[in-house]
Amino acid sequence: MTDETILTVAALHERVEAIFLNAGLNGVQAGALARVIVAGERDACKSHGIYRIEGALRTVKAGKVKPDAVPVLVPQEASAIVRVDAGRGFANPAFEAGLPVLAERARSQGLAALVINDCTHFSALWPEVEAVAREGLAALVMCPSYATVAPAGGNKPLLGTNPFAFGWPRIGNPPYVFDFATSVAARGEIELHRRAGKPLPEGWAIDAAGQPTTDPEAALAGAMLPFGGHKGSAISTMVELLAGIMIGDLTSPEVLDFLGTTTLAPVHGELILAFSPEAFAAGRPGNPFDRAEVLFDAILGQGARLPSQRRFAARAKSESEGIALTGAEIAQLDRLLEKGLDAVA
Amino acid sequence: MTDETILTVAALHERVEAIFLNAGLNGVQAGALARVIVAGERDACKSHGIYRIEGALRTVKAGKVKPDAVPVLVPQEASAIVRVDAGRGFANPAFEAGLPVLAERARSQGLAALVINDCTHFSALWPEVEAVAREGLAALVMCPSYATVAPAGGNKPLLGTNPFAFGWPRIGNPPYVFDFATSVAARGEIELHRRAGKPLPEGWAIDAAGQPTTDPEAALAGAMLPFGGHKGSAISTMVELLAGIMIGDLTSPEVLDFLGTTTLAPVHGELILAFSPEAFAAGRPGNPFDRAEVLFDAILGQGARLPSQRRFAARAKSESEGIALTGAEIAQLDRLLEKGLDAVA
Repeated sequence: MTDETILTVAALHERVEAIFLNAGLNGVQAGALARVIVAGERDACKSHGIYRIEGALRTVKAGKVKPDAVPVLVPQEASAIVRVDAGRGFANPAFEAGLPVLAERARSQGLAALVINDCTHFSALWPEVEAVAREGLAALVMCPSYATVAPAGGNKPLLGTNPFAFGWPRIGNPPYVFDFATSVAARGEIELHRRAGKPLPEGWAIDAAGQPTTDPEAALAGAMLPFGGHKGSAISTMVELLAGIMIGDLTSPEVLDFLGTTTLAPVHGELILAFSPEAFAAGRPGNPFDRAEVLFDAILGQGARLPSQRRFAARAKSESEGIALTGAEIAQLDRLLEKGLDAVA
Repeated sequence: MTDETILTVAALHERVEAIFLNAGLNGVQAGALARVIVAGERDACKSHGIYRIEGALRTVKAGKVKPDAVPVLVPQEASAIVRVDAGRGFANPAFEAGLPVLAERARSQGLAALVINDCTHFSALWPEVEAVAREGLAALVMCPSYATVAPAGGNKPLLGTNPFAFGWPRIGNPPYVFDFATSVAARGEIELHRRAGKPLPEGWAIDAAGQPTTDPEAALAGAMLPFGGHKGSAISTMVELLAGIMIGDLTSPEVLDFLGTTTLAPVHGELILAFSPEAFAAGRPGNPFDRAEVLFDAILGQGARLPSQRRFAARAKSESEGIALTGAEIAQLDRLLEKGLDAVA
């Protein structure tokens, strides 16, 4: 394509970070946001790439996130809990502040939890899962979102799309990582069907009267459905309990009340569990990392994929060949840098 | 019914425990098995009730479980890990031995894990989830089983039906509890369809060639499918990693290799995580138990059920009115008591 520009990962990071700094974010907020946005673009997850910059700026402009927040570690009596007060800033710098302590605790005690409170969640959970896995630890991460999903057997939005993510470190390979919404589809996918004028697949949503619908408009006015029927609904409820209520932060219905809209990034908390496979396997036969490879080989050997495989392939390509952006995308980055918060409604 | 006998919960416990003691199990094994079997019968979970006694005796007779094992706490360097060596006995007495230490650690550190190694898994996970919840703690419990489920995108049995269970304590109410197989259906349900000569619902299984099938025979020769497509498959894989490999115990394919059959209770390990809501919510606004009731009320308010509601209703009835067994069931209990291991093949 003639209007394509190739940027290195580092060059794209610099541009995105400059946009956030210019819009009034402080260094820790801008740096952390740029890292996850560039990671999305690098991994060919366009839905979590530079497209998200505007949403972050809109949330800043609406006064729903503090652009100069500095995350603070809050001392806890319980030694397996590491708590970071995000200070109403984004979750990402709070995660970065808590990770070293989380990793140290998980290594010494076998298991530890990082609680992030009072944060604006931004982007996917896999960057956090991967960061824990780079420490040689397994990770389980979850958070609520906004009330857009009906519980199984119900007829009104109550639960969030509540992502659930897991990672397992691999030697010499990117980690085993999954990260998915506990709804059948992400809300963005319903929006994409609406824009394209296409009906939804059966089983994604119900209308405002609680009846099954394939009409995207009716679905947006009604509720999405959890994946896997009552099982997914139960897991989503667990996310509300553990990563909302237990950590003393908002549930999905409370998030929606607080924001009054689903067009801004959600404000709530996040729960990250880190496990040390070395500590758990201590004194037992076999090396857990070697044994996991036997399982992965068996999955791949029958023609199935590991989750995130496509993402890691895109990453390898981006790191060697750079990231290709269209002329329109470059123009948009320029506009966001120049206009800052004036670029968004 | 004329041939119905009503037993109190305590009287049924006594009969079941006597069967196991008479068959050569020691006190801790017999008592713990009787408790979970009677709990199943009491809660109208017939599939986990007295029907299971024979399976336990068959596993003893096959030499795959040690009837006189005494579970032992194994000191761990990592303080958030409590490890019990089940000594090749059943998981249930090992759980009972580890629970008080698990609860104490979760309360003091906020979060702790109980690892059970070298056990024969028996019955459902909800009795263990409920026991943790009775300590005022949230619980997440998982274990592998036998390789009978194909990973999403695959065509051969590899994963187990890998149950995943969760509990949240409620004040003045039975806990919020779910406990389900990460396969679409439990293996027993496919067996029941086979016996009844009924086709399976679509999406439950594939045949030996990896093609979708609704024929129960073909499904038993092929593989079951995970619930919720690639998402359930990922969760099931996580169970193999955390509750098999990480804890230094068998994965589902290794269990099947070890036993050579799916007709005996599976030998492996189990992972129980316990969370202290009080510790996690410390210093944050709101009481987590009160806030959870608001969420449960909202679920119930739209006509949805909480998981396990039917089980708790049956329990209340059994505790006030006793447990009704048929004449054939009573005769079977008598036969098992009299013949011990000779009663099973």
